[in-house]
Amino acid sequence: MLPDTMDCQKPQQLAERLEARIVQQIPLLAAMQLCFDEYDGQRLRLSAPLAPNINDKGTAFGGSLATLATITGWCYTTLLADRIGANEVVVAESQMSYLAPVEGRLQSRCEMDDPHLLEQFLARLAAQGRASLQLKVIIGEEAEPALSYCGRYVARLRSPL
Amino acid sequence: MLPDTMDCQKPQQLAERLEARIVQQIPLLAAMQLCFDEYDGQRLRLSAPLAPNINDKGTAFGGSLATLATITGWCYTTLLADRIGANEVVVAESQMSYLAPVEGRLQSRCEMDDPHLLEQFLARLAAQGRASLQLKVIIGEEAEPALSYCGRYVARLRSPL
Repeated sequence: MLPDTMDCQKPQQLAERLEARIVQQIPLLAAMQLCFDEYDGQRLRLSAPLAPNINDKGTAFGGSLATLATITGWCYTTLLADRIGANEVVVAESQMSYLAPVEGRLQSRCEMDDPHLLEQFLARLAAQGRASLQLKVIIGEEAEPALSYCGRYVARLRSPL
Repeated sequence: MLPDTMDCQKPQQLAERLEARIVQQIPLLAAMQLCFDEYDGQRLRLSAPLAPNINDKGTAFGGSLATLATITGWCYTTLLADRIGANEVVVAESQMSYLAPVEGRLQSRCEMDDPHLLEQFLARLAAQGRASLQLKVIIGEEAEPALSYCGRYVARLRSPL
């Protein structure tokens, strides 16, 4: 079973606290006007308005899409790893396909269908102090994504359990 | 032989004009304080200061690194495709490995070792009005990169030759 701090803190509150921290500490995310839209412990949705993320063609800038996808996976991993204490999470590698232009708000979504992978990740992190997690993120509609992203994140316990 | 407008305009001037245009039209690049450091027609080097691109750990933010690498490849392709007229260039896909933290200025570099690939790209673009180019970008020292990036870009002629 997943170690869980969710009993006393709702997922959405944890996500809002993380949002406030990273938007304050990472100026590029403030410039992008990053927002947390939803976190229920399984699914995370972030977004950003088009205006600060526009390109020379009037659609979303590829760098903004890459950044939004990367931070969505990072936040997902961080919110998960935080369940077993203060952690450091970094992105290790990523690949993405730009499938269609984004003409409105940039909306990303990360969801892990297989809870066993999350349990394995947390068990390894608790036992070894280090674990990696592979995640998919999409930007746009699920049926017709504008960007499809896959990233691998590494979490480390700052102080072993 | 490469079609060439370089006789009348120096590569560095073309790069500076592109820099001015994209920093004006893409607000995220202005927020990053993107700079063109060098373009000699073969090698392109861009950079950005750490302060607007810092993360919560005091090193360069992964989103800034991803954006810098993506725009470096886009600028390289655009400067090349512009030799045969006004073009539209988009990033199609990319993959990157984050190898080490960046603790100072973010410095990227794109260089094509094989001039035949560039000639093939321009010949296809001129003949078919559309061509794609695969490029490698590194951030950091060449011998010990902090980020290794590979991207595929698609160029289209706005008005066929």
